Amino acid sequence: GDTVTVADYLLQRLIQLGVTQMFGLPGDFNLGSYMRFITCLLTRLMLLESSYRFLGTYMPPDATILIQFIPIVVQDYVEDSPITWVGNCNELNASYAADGYARVKDSSLGVILTTFGVGELSATNGIAGAFSEHVPVLHIVGVPSTTQQKSKPMLHHTLGDGRFDAYFKASQQFTISQATLTNAATAGAEIDRILTDCVVAARPVYLMLPTDLVHEKIPSRRLRTPINSLPPQNDAEVEAFVLDEIMKLVNEAEQDVLILVDACAIRHGVKKELEELIAKTGFPVYSAPMGKTAVNETYERYGGIYVGSISHPEIKERVESAKLILSVGGLKSDFNTGNFTYHIPTTRTIELHSDHTRVQFASYHGIGMKNLLPKLTSRLQPHFEDAKEIPVPKFVRPVPEEDNQIISHTWLWPRVSQFFRPKDVIVAETGTSSFGILDVPLPEGAIFCSQILWGSIGWTVGATLGAALAAEDLGLNRTILFVGDGSLQLTVQELSVMLKLGVKPIIFVLNNSGYTIERYLHGENAHYNDITDWRWTKILSTFGGEEGKNCQSYTVRTKDELSALLDDETFANAEKIQLVEMIMEKHDAPRALKVQAELSGQTNRYVLP
Amino acid sequence: GDTVTVADYLLQRLIQLGVTQMFGLPGDFNLGSYMRFITCLLTRLMLLESSYRFLGTYMPPDATILIQFIPIVVQDYVEDSPITWVGNCNELNASYAADGYARVKDSSLGVILTTFGVGELSATNGIAGAFSEHVPVLHIVGVPSTTQQKSKPMLHHTLGDGRFDAYFKASQQFTISQATLTNAATAGAEIDRILTDCVVAARPVYLMLPTDLVHEKIPSRRLRTPINSLPPQNDAEVEAFVLDEIMKLVNEAEQDVLILVDACAIRHGVKKELEELIAKTGFPVYSAPMGKTAVNETYERYGGIYVGSISHPEIKERVESAKLILSVGGLKSDFNTGNFTYHIPTTRTIELHSDHTRVQFASYHGIGMKNLLPKLTSRLQPHFEDAKEIPVPKFVRPVPEEDNQIISHTWLWPRVSQFFRPKDVIVAETGTSSFGILDVPLPEGAIFCSQILWGSIGWTVGATLGAALAAEDLGLNRTILFVGDGSLQLTVQELSVMLKLGVKPIIFVLNNSGYTIERYLHGENAHYNDITDWRWTKILSTFGGEEGKNCQSYTVRTKDELSALLDDETFANAEKIQLVEMIMEKHDAPRALKVQAELSGQTNRYVLP
Ligand SMILES: Cc1ncc(C[n+]2csc(CCOP(=O)(O)OP(=O)(O)O)c2C)c(N)n1
Ligand SMILES: Cc1ncc(C[n+]2csc(CCOP(=O)(O)OP(=O)(O)O)c2C)c(N)n1
Ligand SMILES: [Mg+2]
Ligand SMILES: [Mg+2]
Repeated sequence: GDTVTVADYLLQRLIQLGVTQMFGLPGDFNLGSYMRFITCLLTRLMLLESSYRFLGTYMPPDATILIQFIPIVVQDYVEDSPITWVGNCNELNASYAADGYARVKDSSLGVILTTFGVGELSATNGIAGAFSEHVPVLHIVGVPSTTQQKSKPMLHHTLGDGRFDAYFKASQQFTISQATLTNAATAGAEIDRILTDCVVAARPVYLMLPTDLVHEKIPSRRLRTPINSLPPQNDAEVEAFVLDEIMKLVNEAEQDVLILVDACAIRHGVKKELEELIAKTGFPVYSAPMGKTAVNETYERYGGIYVGSISHPEIKERVESAKLILSVGGLKSDFNTGNFTYHIPTTRTIELHSDHTRVQFASYHGIGMKNLLPKLTSRLQPHFEDAKEIPVPKFVRPVPEEDNQIISHTWLWPRVSQFFRPKDVIVAETGTSSFGILDVPLPEGAIFCSQILWGSIGWTVGATLGAALAAEDLGLNRTILFVGDGSLQLTVQELSVMLKLGVKPIIFVLNNSGYTIERYLHGENAHYNDITDWRWTKILSTFGGEEGKNCQSYTVRTKDELSALLDDETFANAEKIQLVEMIMEKHDAPRALKVQAELSGQTNRYVLP
Repeated sequence: GDTVTVADYLLQRLIQLGVTQMFGLPGDFNLGSYMRFITCLLTRLMLLESSYRFLGTYMPPDATILIQFIPIVVQDYVEDSPITWVGNCNELNASYAADGYARVKDSSLGVILTTFGVGELSATNGIAGAFSEHVPVLHIVGVPSTTQQKSKPMLHHTLGDGRFDAYFKASQQFTISQATLTNAATAGAEIDRILTDCVVAARPVYLMLPTDLVHEKIPSRRLRTPINSLPPQNDAEVEAFVLDEIMKLVNEAEQDVLILVDACAIRHGVKKELEELIAKTGFPVYSAPMGKTAVNETYERYGGIYVGSISHPEIKERVESAKLILSVGGLKSDFNTGNFTYHIPTTRTIELHSDHTRVQFASYHGIGMKNLLPKLTSRLQPHFEDAKEIPVPKFVRPVPEEDNQIISHTWLWPRVSQFFRPKDVIVAETGTSSFGILDVPLPEGAIFCSQILWGSIGWTVGATLGAALAAEDLGLNRTILFVGDGSLQLTVQELSVMLKLGVKPIIFVLNNSGYTIERYLHGENAHYNDITDWRWTKILSTFGGEEGKNCQSYTVRTKDELSALLDDETFANAEKIQLVEMIMEKHDAPRALKVQAELSGQTNRYVLP
């Protein structure tokens, strides 16, 4: 018809943007919204009739009630929306899941729905992390009615002092745009405004949805114009000038131009443009840690990971001696740059960013790489045919021979590298994992997810859930998680949601008796870096799984045990959720972490008086 | 000596305020502080030599390393501090634990230490809850050095855009005072300022502790003057006037004065003053839900819980017909007042608050109850000897006879009421539990903890840990938790910390297949109110417990099974942590919840178009 409810409007927009899953927990201030989403769930359920994937692997005891329930609620809505509702265990995990989903679902966004106060504030860290790492996440909060927002009664979930805007104010610190819907007339435009900001800036946004507005009718007309998710056009004159400047430097450097890709190349969606640039110029390509998998790591002219002084010496040498560095989507955080140890003079640097360009010392605001890159590629292409001659050491890490059976970091990462398959989604937790995985190449089409800037431990567990759902959606391969025993303890319950939804990640738990990464920073043997010993292989069954049926857990203590498992086809095919506890040494760490910890420890170190 | 380090200063202040436990997680920005606290832990460990309570029940594998480690670190500090370090599983749980600790440890405060950004923001909900419910919690955050705060490098755990004050700004919404230590000269005064605000206002405060200041030396002189935790004196003239006004109304009401106690009587520390007032006047006493256990519930002139229209009819009738209501520490939130259904005219009301007094329509700012109450008591005492004649229906709830074996809410709460012992600490989660427990009396000296205003589910799990530690400290009896299956999923990992520390709560899990309370608000049979079925009796052993040794789990399905368990002396003596899964009906709820849900549902209800 000509009108839709506010909830429908929002949903339609999300569907247009490719959203297929929504994360969160119910609460009485958002039940109105839930009611709406459950209809979608049920629609999907009907479509998939024979499969109970969305209700867990068991036939749910109330399936018949649900089916009876369908006509009442769904009938009016059957036409719409394949968005399914993921009920998470808690809101932090839900925010992590939305983040993980958005990272894999490239041009779409992650969505989390929580209730007022208690729900939304539990997600703060997850939303702030999405801000920090440039991930588009929409945070919808079900809030008291517009009338209550004005009269400010002392409702549950309030601070008790009438400040109904406190959560909104806090959210302003961690989101790029906020909207609090106050009337039907502006609701559609407000939703469009924050959704546009979310996808264009690749940052989280915040939406307050009062209980009474959810089902207000608004015109549907706007829905016919899709949300623009492209960045603004560059000013033609400035852009031409910038291209000339770049070409000057490129010419001066002769063949010796090197491309360094980083986080924002992925987050601001220029992987395609980058691929063209690389293929057509043949320039050598290296990646910062956060840019891992922006470029196919098996590409012959890809040289591996550059992290300043903690890079492999050969990589460091190659990158730092190039005459010109074309940096694409750079994000120079401490852990992403070997604690700020780039040895590349600004005079030899061109930086392409999502919303500006730097050529040596000059900044050009408003000149974004999405539009600049194709033009740059075509300017470059005719010229540098023999840039292809510059040698690039192959990025390979053979499995080292060690004369013991200990699962060491030096052995582990090259070994699992052989296990990866094209289009796998590989998630690595902050800790020894995120350092170890950097050192080895991932296959073609693989997607790497890690929080190298934000570094909130426990993030991967929720993120893996979201990533796995997105991967299914996109027809990618397996989702593989590496997580420390310490980190997994923060968010472990989300494994139960994986069981419920039937996603099938392979989860490698690095059991090294605690917070090894912190031992490198402080308190090598200190009690506060120990954790309680859990029975990791019992976790899945405790959370409702049936070992051997819809889940499988393993403990491996030796290289041979792990190798055998990795070589097992059934295991490798990931037909159910699998958890592999790997027993490792408390004080072992990947080379890069040892060096990094030394570098960053110096800055924060407390020296005993 | 004449100087102490900033960390020592802070610690000494906390010790003076009676703090014995500190909650949180390590991170590299707070390791300096941890280093300091670990020394206290180790000191304590040495003192308790024979017991490994603080390292779990097993002999820790690295005990010898720890012992070797002691001389290096502890030697200089052996003299001080019985504060022990509780390493939590995640920061939200840690904040809940600090909150629970502070609630039980009446005149002290709860302390949580987290790392910059990722750590602190995970605790936001817990801190906001402490604000809402008037709980004194100090949130210490280990942050980058003062130099880094100025130069703003792109460190891990930052938002990546140089806003180093964003977390501070967010914290301003949820804490009553904040301090960011910037130099040694003001550090002591700043610490004192926020600690004073914390304990006087009974609200959370926020402290940023830069890595480089932790071990700066500052004068110790201030430490000789203890922190003042008393509220300011009342203006004598205004106070005298107010007392006259009150006496006028009391005289007019003749004998018919009724005392209604509420949350702030507990939180703002007037339980003693209240006891005097009650004992000396003999006025009938009733309690709002949040005031439960402010007054001994077995006291003969205590009539039970008043919650507006959802009170038991006899209680409602008594309270609403009294000629004058003396309300002490009132906090009129929706769930605390039966959705704002007090039928008591303002003309018949006197309200005593922590920082003001209301007599009918007149407000007297700055006249606080802590100082007013003793004066009021002495003015009242000579007069109303026969107020004691007003009948008060005894607050008892006999166990009903039911002709089935289902563990129903009507049967459950009176039955467990018989199980309680004096000085038990009883914690009830938001959901059917918090409604059910209100209906039954608790024994003398019992402490009741629940979040009736904030209502963040999962809170009780962390809170129980903190409460149990505080209870041990104060020589109280058992800590008993009632928690819904839905709520427990949010924060379940904290059970492992209970195992580690060897605290021994009895945990009743109400397994009613999901979010029953929400079913009463919306979506009776909806999928989003279902949860995955966990194997509850496997939880403790999965988290490292040894069934029968340091933990015990039970499932009870019938009234007889539960009764037998409650009557079992070994069980009742709570010698190890125990978890009791109670199988209950999905759609059953305590009477009060059914009525309340109806009342509050109307406000937030979404009606299908
Ligand atoms: C939410 C949060 N809390 C605390 C920290 C500080 N921290 C960083 S790494 C780490 C320990 C990780 O331990 P584990 O997962 O076992 O990793 P590994 O032993 O492999 O290093 C901690 C506590 C953090 N980054 N995020
Ligand atoms: C952090 C948080 N998220 C969501 C909610 C909304 N909520 C209130 S009660 C509840 C369900 C509680 O279920 P359960 O613990 O099983 O209790 P019961 O079934 O006994 O009612 C939910 C989801 C909340 N109050 N707090
Ligand atoms: Mg570890
Ligand atoms: Mg339940």
